[in-house]
Amino acid sequence: MWDDVEPLLATLRPGLYIGVRGRLERYQEERQLHIERLAPVRVELDDLVLFLPRSARSAELMDAELNALIDSIREPPLRDLLHRLLDRSTDSGHTFRLAPAAKQHHHAYLGGLLEHTLSVTQVCELLAGHYGSGLDRDLLVTGALLHDIGKIREISTRSGFPYTDEGKLLGHILIGLQLIADAAAGVSGLAAERLLLVQHLVASHQGRFEWQSPREPRTLEAVILHYADDLDAKLNQVAALVAAVGQGWTAYDRGFARDFLRHRPADERPAPLPPRPASATSALPPRRGRTARTGFETLDLFET
Amino acid sequence: MWDDVEPLLATLRPGLYIGVRGRLERYQEERQLHIERLAPVRVELDDLVLFLPRSARSAELMDAELNALIDSIREPPLRDLLHRLLDRSTDSGHTFRLAPAAKQHHHAYLGGLLEHTLSVTQVCELLAGHYGSGLDRDLLVTGALLHDIGKIREISTRSGFPYTDEGKLLGHILIGLQLIADAAAGVSGLAAERLLLVQHLVASHQGRFEWQSPREPRTLEAVILHYADDLDAKLNQVAALVAAVGQGWTAYDRGFARDFLRHRPADERPAPLPPRPASATSALPPRRGRTARTGFETLDLFET
Amino acid sequence: MWDDVEPLLATLRPGLYIGVRGRLERYQEERQLHIERLAPVRVELDDLVLFLPRSARSAELMDAELNALIDSIREPPLRDLLHRLLDRSTDSGHTFRLAPAAKQHHHAYLGGLLEHTLSVTQVCELLAGHYGSGLDRDLLVTGALLHDIGKIREISTRSGFPYTDEGKLLGHILIGLQLIADAAAGVSGLAAERLLLVQHLVASHQGRFEWQSPREPRTLEAVILHYADDLDAKLNQVAALVAAVGQGWTAYDRGFARDFLRHRPADERPAPLPPRPASATSALPPRRGRTARTGFETLDLFET
Amino acid sequence: MWDDVEPLLATLRPGLYIGVRGRLERYQEERQLHIERLAPVRVELDDLVLFLPRSARSAELMDAELNALIDSIREPPLRDLLHRLLDRSTDSGHTFRLAPAAKQHHHAYLGGLLEHTLSVTQVCELLAGHYGSGLDRDLLVTGALLHDIGKIREISTRSGFPYTDEGKLLGHILIGLQLIADAAAGVSGLAAERLLLVQHLVASHQGRFEWQSPREPRTLEAVILHYADDLDAKLNQVAALVAAVGQGWTAYDRGFARDFLRHRPADERPAPLPPRPASATSALPPRRGRTARTGFETLDLFET
Amino acid sequence: MWDDVEPLLATLRPGLYIGVRGRLERYQEERQLHIERLAPVRVELDDLVLFLPRSARSAELMDAELNALIDSIREPPLRDLLHRLLDRSTDSGHTFRLAPAAKQHHHAYLGGLLEHTLSVTQVCELLAGHYGSGLDRDLLVTGALLHDIGKIREISTRSGFPYTDEGKLLGHILIGLQLIADAAAGVSGLAAERLLLVQHLVASHQGRFEWQSPREPRTLEAVILHYADDLDAKLNQVAALVAAVGQGWTAYDRGFARDFLRHRPADERPAPLPPRPASATSALPPRRGRTARTGFETLDLFET
Amino acid sequence: MWDDVEPLLATLRPGLYIGVRGRLERYQEERQLHIERLAPVRVELDDLVLFLPRSARSAELMDAELNALIDSIREPPLRDLLHRLLDRSTDSGHTFRLAPAAKQHHHAYLGGLLEHTLSVTQVCELLAGHYGSGLDRDLLVTGALLHDIGKIREISTRSGFPYTDEGKLLGHILIGLQLIADAAAGVSGLAAERLLLVQHLVASHQGRFEWQSPREPRTLEAVILHYADDLDAKLNQVAALVAAVGQGWTAYDRGFARDFLRHRPADERPAPLPPRPASATSALPPRRGRTARTGFETLDLFET
Repeated sequence: MWDDVEPLLATLRPGLYIGVRGRLERYQEERQLHIERLAPVRVELDDLVLFLPRSARSAELMDAELNALIDSIREPPLRDLLHRLLDRSTDSGHTFRLAPAAKQHHHAYLGGLLEHTLSVTQVCELLAGHYGSGLDRDLLVTGALLHDIGKIREISTRSGFPYTDEGKLLGHILIGLQLIADAAAGVSGLAAERLLLVQHLVASHQGRFEWQSPREPRTLEAVILHYADDLDAKLNQVAALVAAVGQGWTAYDRGFARDFLRHRPADERPAPLPPRPASATSALPPRRGRTARTGFETLDLFET
Repeated sequence: MWDDVEPLLATLRPGLYIGVRGRLERYQEERQLHIERLAPVRVELDDLVLFLPRSARSAELMDAELNALIDSIREPPLRDLLHRLLDRSTDSGHTFRLAPAAKQHHHAYLGGLLEHTLSVTQVCELLAGHYGSGLDRDLLVTGALLHDIGKIREISTRSGFPYTDEGKLLGHILIGLQLIADAAAGVSGLAAERLLLVQHLVASHQGRFEWQSPREPRTLEAVILHYADDLDAKLNQVAALVAAVGQGWTAYDRGFARDFLRHRPADERPAPLPPRPASATSALPPRRGRTARTGFETLDLFET
Repeated sequence: MWDDVEPLLATLRPGLYIGVRGRLERYQEERQLHIERLAPVRVELDDLVLFLPRSARSAELMDAELNALIDSIREPPLRDLLHRLLDRSTDSGHTFRLAPAAKQHHHAYLGGLLEHTLSVTQVCELLAGHYGSGLDRDLLVTGALLHDIGKIREISTRSGFPYTDEGKLLGHILIGLQLIADAAAGVSGLAAERLLLVQHLVASHQGRFEWQSPREPRTLEAVILHYADDLDAKLNQVAALVAAVGQGWTAYDRGFARDFLRHRPADERPAPLPPRPASATSALPPRRGRTARTGFETLDLFET
Repeated sequence: MWDDVEPLLATLRPGLYIGVRGRLERYQEERQLHIERLAPVRVELDDLVLFLPRSARSAELMDAELNALIDSIREPPLRDLLHRLLDRSTDSGHTFRLAPAAKQHHHAYLGGLLEHTLSVTQVCELLAGHYGSGLDRDLLVTGALLHDIGKIREISTRSGFPYTDEGKLLGHILIGLQLIADAAAGVSGLAAERLLLVQHLVASHQGRFEWQSPREPRTLEAVILHYADDLDAKLNQVAALVAAVGQGWTAYDRGFARDFLRHRPADERPAPLPPRPASATSALPPRRGRTARTGFETLDLFET
Repeated sequence: MWDDVEPLLATLRPGLYIGVRGRLERYQEERQLHIERLAPVRVELDDLVLFLPRSARSAELMDAELNALIDSIREPPLRDLLHRLLDRSTDSGHTFRLAPAAKQHHHAYLGGLLEHTLSVTQVCELLAGHYGSGLDRDLLVTGALLHDIGKIREISTRSGFPYTDEGKLLGHILIGLQLIADAAAGVSGLAAERLLLVQHLVASHQGRFEWQSPREPRTLEAVILHYADDLDAKLNQVAALVAAVGQGWTAYDRGFARDFLRHRPADERPAPLPPRPASATSALPPRRGRTARTGFETLDLFET
Repeated sequence: MWDDVEPLLATLRPGLYIGVRGRLERYQEERQLHIERLAPVRVELDDLVLFLPRSARSAELMDAELNALIDSIREPPLRDLLHRLLDRSTDSGHTFRLAPAAKQHHHAYLGGLLEHTLSVTQVCELLAGHYGSGLDRDLLVTGALLHDIGKIREISTRSGFPYTDEGKLLGHILIGLQLIADAAAGVSGLAAERLLLVQHLVASHQGRFEWQSPREPRTLEAVILHYADDLDAKLNQVAALVAAVGQGWTAYDRGFARDFLRHRPADERPAPLPPRPASATSALPPRRGRTARTGFETLDLFET
């Protein structure tokens, strides 16, 4: 049987999956694997979760949150655009649910792109609720949901999450703009001006030219999206560093040029706050958009 | 009577208030002011609102929000610290309610410091709710409420909002840390470690050394506070630029090195969203912290 | 007649063209213009050359050079792509011949985009000839011809050359990539890999992220295009500064943070070089690409 | 015999050459080297090519190109200056033909300085031909030929190409300026103003203060020389990276902070272009300077 | 006996001190250590000099210099402030004499903080003498003596000199300001304005925001202190590099991005200068402040 | 007489000196100037002090200090080099005594170059005395005296102190190196290694490439010279700002991006310090180099 192995070894490359067929036997109190056949196997996209790290959040809940956010858009053409790009039934929507959000640094695991996108969008929605009526909530949510869509073609969804040629030569922002332009061509009733504002959100979400952003934010919504995106990526990174130590200082991180403090173990924290008495301001009407958040699963930084 | 004027003129300096006594008469269909006496007058802090620009938000509502936030802190020593520094009955708390948040750029009007502080704290609370149980909400809210406290001695609450000597020689972060250390000395039960974490939030809230931050954020809470502060200041600036134009492009802003687009007049926006039907995720428990926000007045970026 | 003027004056905006009808008379040895009617007029794109500064190079010669360059492409799909975007008969090709290359700084005049594009492409061709067979000349020339195509929608072809909304929100590189993607959809036989390499040339031609380039050059051709573009723009700027002084030092230029020296007036330069005798190396075969330059009009930096 | 070895080993230092005398014998089907004597040997400059990497270009052809370029200068004092510094019979000219252009990064091999200098000068000549009569071609070519002359004393022409003391304490630009000043003292008829312009070309060729350039370009010729030098050095580096892979992506390069794509193997490129038909512009007179390039050997980026 | 070792080994951590009890015996001409007991021991601060690197300067002389500098202050409140913080009998003064000046880089040894502080203060005094009567010498000397006082709580005085939590979360400048504020509270007659100027010296001594200085110098004294501090730290670093080589070039230093030359061995330097004859200017009065330096021990860069 | 004026006015240029001949008369209690002739006059270098701002320090004392410093050099070749460049009897030495140290910013007045050079050298000498025997004092003083020598040809000694062509194209460091190389050629016994170290001091005195320094300091002496030079220039600037206000804050300075505080008027400073009693350390031998300073005039920052 070992005759199979040598030629196989010669073809091994990083990122290849090897199928092993054999039988488990017991020999003098120890278990032994009798290998009968080794061969490279093709692993379908949906089976990658068996091999690669994946998001700690439930895929079903994330799916439900995504659908709820899309359905919350009041403007039919924007909602249509989102359906065409993000629906589970589409190619892009399918990959969108599996892809990582980055090669390394933040959300570098299967489902990371969806997890990051949801979190950024939910933060944007909270901020839109907080900053009031001057903001175009639908535009902001649309841009937030699409801001990293290009990553489905920038990063390969296989071991190591290497960049694609397209990823290196164009990058996810330019790829994303192309995906949006292609999808927008089929949307009826989408005004050029609205599409332009969505494209600007995608083009400027990295905030500064030197941070590889082709544009800098020039609308209130673009300013918000940039901060929400940057905060979510940074927090995910710091939370991963912090989660890796029980308490005290994390390892030194070169990118941040510092270490971080996990200042108290979880079990030492005080008991939950008792219900607060109705305050003097409790008669005020509730804020727009808050109710919509009821359905979201709690995102816990330390689940990872 | 004009004999009074020459010596008065010789003593005029920017920032001086001049009292005028006279009588209004009508002469040939036009009104005339007969001046009887001119003299420099001393204007009490509480009367400055008659002369200087002030926040568009109601002082009473802001006061209520501040009190509610302080009362929401579960940890007695932190709550005590906040009372000693921010209660309306204290000197610092009194000035805190009147001071601007900056000499220019953002929230540069009476009440601006309180308005900015509330908004930053509320954003921090929303983010603490979103990012879940790994965060120390009380610590974050305490740091957010105190992050700019030093501005009460950095900027003079008079016309032009000039910097004080202390403001130029130490800056608001160092002044704030001193105010906190002084107040903390009187708080019983405040562990050195907790105080240190509050001080770190103040010391690092400007995020980067080159942005004049004596420290860079090294806790999750400090990362969040920095983003909330930066976002709120920037949005206030951009919203002021945008509010100054009816529609279209704002004037070019040197600090941002760009102009901004106000993309639609308010009255052309679509009708309010009808109530959303209960979604598949509606059975999930509500998020911690959301109820607390019920009482907040809606902050509208375009009220200014 | 002057009754017409007041309402007209009220509608004047920068960039408006006013038609004047009247008659020229002679009164006491001086000529007088008797105005009969004033009205805003619509000036067709092709008539703008009557009002705005234009390139010193002949439009016919530039047109011929452009056609020759397109025809020199050996790869049918790339040539087809160029025809679809740059042919005089197309909308984009028409505007391409009239547009300026920048709002200010370099080639900021009608025809400037074509003049700059030709010069950059010709420099690329010279460099491709010099650096030999390792380079993909057709790819480089295609990318050079298209690198600034997005400027036809970034800058308005009217007085002051203001940026369009699209120009501010997306910028010429993203617009150009969209134009190319749209045109490429109709080209038969254009391999995805080839299109990607063209797109990379456009996406990376500004060389560095902080110079507003969405990508940095990752092919030899992209390195060359970046230098050719940067050199041509800079030389055009410096030549304009130098041309404005007879001899000696130019005015101080803020962008360059220096002044420049025009070191000798043209008429003091030595007589033309006599024909060089055949050198020892004259038996070597001629370089590829050199013959192709025979047809180019001489570009003189000081014609402007 | 091995008694010789121990004391020899004790004196070994990097960069030392060891002579080995022995005889080659055959023992049981294998060849054996019988060493009779080992001793450090002095290797003359001209013999270094036996040990160190050298340019892929023919030394004779490069010599011929250099002479042709010097002879092409019409202004006798500039030509005289070049002869005094670069003639093969001079010390400086001799070393100039052997030296590398850099310790590492680009053209880091024997003959690299001459190869780089020729290429930069030829690119300058092409650009002078392209940009027309406003440029002082003789000045530009003189500056290009001399721009790196100081490297003959900055870098040691021995293994590892270490910097000399003078190289570390002054650098090649300051050394070069001193060499030029010394040589210029013996040139008759060289106007101070002309010498100053040559010196400026050398002093500013690295373009920016932060790129270790003592001056920034302030003449058109200096702008061109800087771009030609920078492009040639960068292309040589990238070409070396690209040549090291058959096809696809190079290793990640720290200096460039990216990897590069070799996008097609040489043998897959299309057949040579058939002779182009005379175009509509073929009647234009040829450009100045083009004929002069006839004699140059083809420089192929991938020969290395 | 070895039974003791295993559990001990399990508790070893970097920075722990292990006591060894045993007896030294002689066995067959070789000395042997018979270990009887191993146990972690607590090493008092004053005994650390037995284990950790320490300053080459005499502790007694440094102590005398410090006292002399404090006594030289003419302004009683400033002198009182210095006594409260730096007197050997105080906790802070005790640690101040033992602490290193940095974790690595410069003066990273026991006593380094005092050595660095003295040298900076002496340089400040020399500069105050040189630059004349416009400077406030007492203020400058006070600020110089206190500029790094916060390091006594920023860096742990144990092996490796790790940062404390407070050091990471606040840094030595903020800690120092707190120490000064606390001490100043007990000083009678210290005007708020004087204290503010001392605080500014501490707050701005690192010179630039991006060099982690919370303030930038805004008084003449603060400008001088910054230069004296920076020079002394850099010279100490370079001198350590230079001292590590007998002659010639030091190892490449990443922080400085260069190597340094030790240009002559000490013993090759010329004989001491014979006494200079009284010059024409010898009748001028001596400078203020020079006499005060008579008592200082000579600081020799190469003693280390 | 006024007929003279019109043609004269036509020839006026900035920097021209106009001679006026006339007589002063008294007419009705007022003095009148009766102009008889106006003509441009040539003002010899030595007479410029009549028209342009000059150093507040006595030229005779500065001359004496310069001579004393040169005479203090123990190494004959270095002393010879200094005599050849700085002796009053030489052209360079003559101009050196009249030239300003900068076009603007610091020491921008006649005699400023000498004043700045002396101050930098004296600071270097103080530092050499402080930092002890590891430093090559003669080398440092030589480099300090020559570090800005190139300014005698970089800046025109006439109104406005404009840069010369040579100053713009080469700059004072490169000019200075050339002056030194020329002078060194005539000095007997000057070892190449010593000259190289002097040249390095000049080449690196601006400290960083981005601060327009062709080299960065690589010897201890070069590190010291850089700090002494930078400090002296900055202090001169700040002192000029401070001297322009009686007390309080100076005008905002763009270069420094801040204002400065003059914190107390001179007359409020405490009485001179009484003679200090001999301290415990007074038995230590005096430091080398201190005696040499006896002869220097006191430099007072506020004389200007």
